[in-house]
Formats: sequence, C-alpha cells, structure tokens
Amino acid sequence: MSKIKPEPISGFPEFLPDEQITFDWARDLIRRHYESFGFSPIETPAVERAEVLLAKGGNDREIYGLHRLAEDESGGDADLALHFDLTVPLARYVAQYAGQLAFPFRRYQIQPVWRGERPQAGRYRQFYQCDIDVIGDRQLSLFNDAEMPAVISGIFSEMEIGPFTIRINNRKVLRGLLADIGLGDDEAEAIRAFDRIDKIGRANVAEQLRQLGATDEGVDRLLALAGGTRSTDEWMEWLEAQDVNETFAEGIAELRTVVEGFRAMGVPEDHFRVDPGLARGLDYYTGTIYETRLDDHPEVGSICGGGRYENLAENYTNRKLPGVGISIGLTRMLPRLFEAGVLTPGRSTPARVLVSLFSPDQWADALKIGAALREAGIPTEVYAEKKKLKQQLKYAARKGHDLVVIAGPSELETG
Amino acid sequence: MSKIKPEPISGFPEFLPDEQITFDWARDLIRRHYESFGFSPIETPAVERAEVLLAKGGNDREIYGLHRLAEDESGGDADLALHFDLTVPLARYVAQYAGQLAFPFRRYQIQPVWRGERPQAGRYRQFYQCDIDVIGDRQLSLFNDAEMPAVISGIFSEMEIGPFTIRINNRKVLRGLLADIGLGDDEAEAIRAFDRIDKIGRANVAEQLRQLGATDEGVDRLLALAGGTRSTDEWMEWLEAQDVNETFAEGIAELRTVVEGFRAMGVPEDHFRVDPGLARGLDYYTGTIYETRLDDHPEVGSICGGGRYENLAENYTNRKLPGVGISIGLTRMLPRLFEAGVLTPGRSTPARVLVSLFSPDQWADALKIGAALREAGIPTEVYAEKKKLKQQLKYAARKGHDLVVIAGPSELETG
Repeated sequence: MSKIKPEPISGFPEFLPDEQITFDWARDLIRRHYESFGFSPIETPAVERAEVLLAKGGNDREIYGLHRLAEDESGGDADLALHFDLTVPLARYVAQYAGQLAFPFRRYQIQPVWRGERPQAGRYRQFYQCDIDVIGDRQLSLFNDAEMPAVISGIFSEMEIGPFTIRINNRKVLRGLLADIGLGDDEAEAIRAFDRIDKIGRANVAEQLRQLGATDEGVDRLLALAGGTRSTDEWMEWLEAQDVNETFAEGIAELRTVVEGFRAMGVPEDHFRVDPGLARGLDYYTGTIYETRLDDHPEVGSICGGGRYENLAENYTNRKLPGVGISIGLTRMLPRLFEAGVLTPGRSTPARVLVSLFSPDQWADALKIGAALREAGIPTEVYAEKKKLKQQLKYAARKGHDLVVIAGPSELETG
Repeated sequence: MSKIKPEPISGFPEFLPDEQITFDWARDLIRRHYESFGFSPIETPAVERAEVLLAKGGNDREIYGLHRLAEDESGGDADLALHFDLTVPLARYVAQYAGQLAFPFRRYQIQPVWRGERPQAGRYRQFYQCDIDVIGDRQLSLFNDAEMPAVISGIFSEMEIGPFTIRINNRKVLRGLLADIGLGDDEAEAIRAFDRIDKIGRANVAEQLRQLGATDEGVDRLLALAGGTRSTDEWMEWLEAQDVNETFAEGIAELRTVVEGFRAMGVPEDHFRVDPGLARGLDYYTGTIYETRLDDHPEVGSICGGGRYENLAENYTNRKLPGVGISIGLTRMLPRLFEAGVLTPGRSTPARVLVSLFSPDQWADALKIGAALREAGIPTEVYAEKKKLKQQLKYAARKGHDLVVIAGPSELETG
C-alpha cells in the first residue's frame, strides 16, 4: 500500500506528551485563578456565521470559512466560518442570551482560535486564548478594571516564570492629547503609529505623526509620554500636573482609581507600572489598557493584554454593554518560555507508579496491585507486555514514573 | 446601525454557564480517571490534511474543508480540513513521532470533532470526544483490553448517573461464525446488518442475511447470539460448548482472558456483561468490542464505545501498531442526561462567596475582603456596581453563591 507521509502543517502547533503536560498545567493554573475570582466558564462553538465574524473587525483574508469536501447539494453551510478570537463570539453569546444571564456577566473562556495567516515560522494559524471579561448592563464600575491586574499578577506569580511587569495606561490620556495637538480626526491612525514606537523608533513615529498633520511641538508633547523611566507615582504626579483637556483629565482620574484599586487588592508594586507610552493597536479599547511582559525575556513579547471597551455587542443589540477583559495567549507564550529556558517540560506521563510484570502468569496480581494503588489515589500504570524487567525499567525512566513496583513470584508469595 | 440577529446554528450546541459548569465537571472527572491509569494527554490541531482524513474511512461529504473567506491568492490551504474523529489524528501523530514516543503508547485526548451532518435535531456537527487508546509496537497484550472496562466503570460510578452495563464481545466470535455459515466474503456487510437488530428487528436482519446468501440454519445460528438473557458466565459456558472454527475459538479465549482481567481489577459484576449479540458498526475493530448504556435510560443510547484494532497507522507507516481504545461521547451524552433528569445543572458561578458593596466609598475594603478570602482558598466575587443591597442579594441568589458577605460602615469600623 502506498503510504501518506505524516508531516507537520505550518502554523498548527502540537506538542509531545511532556510538553502537553506542561501546557495543561499552565492552562489549569490559569483556569483556577479565573474561577477563584468568580468568572464562570463558557465555551462557544468553533464556528460562527461569517456575517457575525465580519461585523466587527474580522479580516476576510484571515478568516477560515467551511465547506464540505464533496458538496453533493447546497448544504446551507456556506455562511459558516471559524472564530478568529473569543471576543466576537462573546458579544454574540451575550446578545443572544442576555435575558438568561445575570449582569455584570463575568465569564472566562479558554479555547483555540483560528487565523488564516500565511505560513511562516512563529505565525500560528491555530492558538489558544485564555480570556476573562466582565460585561455590565449599561454601566460597569472601574473597580473591575482594577481587578484584572490582580488576576494576572496571581497567575504569573504562581507560574514562576520570573519577574514581569503589567503596564497600564488609559486610552483617554492618548485621545485627549491627540485632540489637543490637532490629530483628533486621525486618532486611530495616530494611535497605531504611536504603538509601533518600539519597532520603528521615535524618529519614524514622529515622521508619521507629522504626515498626519502634527506640529513639531505636538509631536514632542506626544512622544514625551513614551519611554520615560518614571515610577508609577512619578508618572501620576507628572500627568496630573498637565493641563490638557477634559478627556485627558478623565483618563488620569480613571488611572488613579485603578491604581488605588490594585493597591487595595495587594498587587505587589513591582508587578505593575503606569506607562502613558502604552498604546495597543486595536481600535476597540476606550479606557484602561494593559500589557504584560517578562522583564528578563523581552524576546518573548507580550504574554497578556486587554482593556476596557465601551460597547461589546453593538452589532447585535441596542442594549449598551460596556466591558473590560484580558487575554493570555498561551500557545504563543509557552513554546517561547521553553526556548528561553524559563519553563522546562518534565515527565511525559501523569502516572507516578509503574507496576512491572514479572511474567504473564502474574498479570492478575499486577492488575490488582494497580487497582489498589489507584484506590489509594496514586495514578498508576500497569506494564502488561512480555518484556524483560530491564526494558520495563528503561520504559519507566523514559516516561518519568517516580517508582517502579517490582512484584516477582517470591514477593507475591510472601505478600 | 442595522443589527445582526444572533441565532443558534443547528448542530453546534453551546451551554449557559450552569450547564457549562456541569459539563466541565464531567470532563474533569473523566480526565482525572484517565490520568489515574497513566494515560498521557495529547492534543492534535483541529486541522489535518484532507488526504490524511480521507485515507481511512473519512466520508468526504461529511468532512469540513477550510478556505479563506476572501482568497486573494492561492494560499496553499486548499488541502486543510477539520478532523471528524480523534482516531485518525492519533494514527497520524503516532506515525509522525514514533521515534520520540515510548511504546506501549498510552494517550488520552479530549477535544471537539466536526462532522458535516445535515441540520437535524440531535445531530451534532461539533461534539466533544473523550478518548483513551493504548498503542503497542508490533504487539499489545490483551490485558490492556481488560483495563478499558475498569476505566469506564470507575468514571460512570463516580458520575452517579444510575446503573449502567458495559457490554463486551469479540469480533472474532462473529467473524468465525460468519465464515462458518458462508458469509465470510460479506463479513463487513453482515456485521452491519447484525448491528441494526435493535433498530430494524430480527426478521429484517434475517432477510438481509438471506439476501447475502445465508441459509435458514445459518441465520438461526447467527441470531442465536443476539438478545439472550444469559449471564456472563452462562454465555461463556454456552459459547465454549460451541464447536465452530479456530477464529471463533480464539475470540472466546480472548473474551475469557478479558473477563478474568476485569474481575481481577475489581470491576463490579453488575457493571459488565458478555453479549455475543454486540456487533458495533465500524469495520475497524478486529477483536474485543465494548459498548455502554444506562440501564434505566435506554433512550440516552450508547454513552461509550470502543474496541481492539489490528493496525492503527497502516496508511502512514510500515510499522505494525495494534491498539485498543474507548471513547466517551460527552456532548451527545450530557444534554440527554439533563433531559432524562439524571443530571441537573446547579450554580452558574464557580465563586462560593459574594462580597457585597455597601457604598462606592467602601470599595477598597470590599476588594481587600475579596483578596483575603481568595488567599484563604475560597473562590470569591466582589460586587462592584452601585446597586441596592436587595439587588445584590438577588444577583447572588440567581448565580448560586453560598454566602454573601455584607460589610457596611459599622461592620468595617468594628472590624
């Protein structure tokens, strides 16, 4: 028979069992923290109607549509496509079940998403996102914005992946200043330019802002927000001393409340930093924004981001639903942590004990020993093949069992 | 702005939070049992190459292929499709990483699968499967076949979904008898007919077997296997008294070994039953086969099935890889258990405590109380909106918190 060569598909990562066990450990840890803050689980189908995905920000070149491989008749599936994030499905879900949900609606969602990226190293076409969002009915208190860094801080502390910083800003600060320097009409474009300061440098950003119509003085005022070495309190003081406009002042007041909030919750000072240079590309955000990086591993990039938005589901309902959320990009993050040596996969089995098989005559005894160990709460594998003990020990060493139970005839006789 | 009406898509089920919490509980329970037997987790991408899916049993009318919604150039994704089960991906995975895996390779895999079914009530187009398989390198001991019912028995006992029976048979019994009555060449078709005995009745099955060329006596001998009321030991005795052929005898000897195996592991007698009338439709199986149903709720149908197969990955490798596995169809099963009243969703939040907010002035105190409760291991939600206490209590009652912490100014003053 001619064989099909099994090959990896670019952008669709998969793990060996030892890496998968580490992945599952991280996912469980994140889930436990989300649940400890009272976020309820939901899961939406991988599939949404294409019009739902395209209504808010979906790029039709990056969205995977579905078709049957052999279409014998028009199956009515032509409008189905895979979700590219978990925010659009959340918006659809909340609009659909609004009458059955209690608001504020707090949900977590840990699922893969799909993006039709060009095949390229490190560009994932399927990856997990771990999201939390709080959705209010018409209004949503700023205290929810303060809670997000507390969740993140707890997760990354317990993961022990080294020092990290949650940078925090408020879009209103940027928007206020942009309006003041005459870029109010090109706000989205200006924010996108400003967001790329680490990638393309200050001079290039300045040039782009000038092209949008900013004066040299305006550019200087905007760039003064970026790259400073001030502490959170120094930045707050500096910002509060500026007299720009109402939007700017509102942003600073919100930042102040949020910082007070996570200080009240006991988030350690070295886990967060107010940074008015943080922009985040998405148009979507209207208030608080967050981004988290590892201090010692800038090459890993952003491991968690999010923010506040005005109206989650405006495409589906007239009900105004403001929200705030964060997302941990687990699939992007973990292989980079493996590469950076921050996390190392260990054992490749969840069993702690291997019960060896001395000879096929003893199989019933081996199965009994295995059952008794499991009964005692110890994950146990029984080796059932006819192999020499030496090979069984090699197997256990390779998989990572802590202990091998060797029960030969004499051991079994004496009990 | 014109609104898009959010609507359910037929065949793509999703749950409200209370149901999702029950779903997650069941999934976690299954996972814990799988891990206690030393099955390692793996996860494969949702996507495989179409040729991989079609090589073994994939129906191209039921497989969803992927395309980009707007294809600006030939993106090279034309050969990608969603997996329709977890066995084909397992075969591809094992063939691909054979050099890096320790055999016997024991894995579990809990993921959704997709099938392009016609929209129809109860026909899922996305559903979770929870699979375990043990794959041997050239050989695989029958003791693994004995382990499967022990895993199933532990899971459904702990789920407390009422009495259940794991029916067990061996394909060689059927194949031996079919050869003996002259249907050896039409084996697959005869097994499929025999498998439908509950659906279409004995007379119709008899007619189909006669059309395949069976004599009346042959039909009688085959139908004698089905629908008996014998106990496991009575069946074994009856079967062992038959003198048919070598294949038949081999099947009975294997059944005997497997039954002894799960007796050794302490599987309760009322959880399993040898039933030579069990056929299972799939061509795939070559030895032991299993199927589990709830005794009091036949309408729920099969909740778990599986069996032994000769060669997992013959389409991808020359290495002979025999295996045995089972699959729990969680998405199909759970809504039916809800309908049958066997399981009832409860709370819709993982938080046990709601800290109420007396007034916005007290928010820092409320956040502190929440953080302290979480620190003590109690999942806690802090209510942050400006609402009357009565409404906060209503919210807690609706979501299912066990306890509401009411901390007004006097309580906070007195500590």
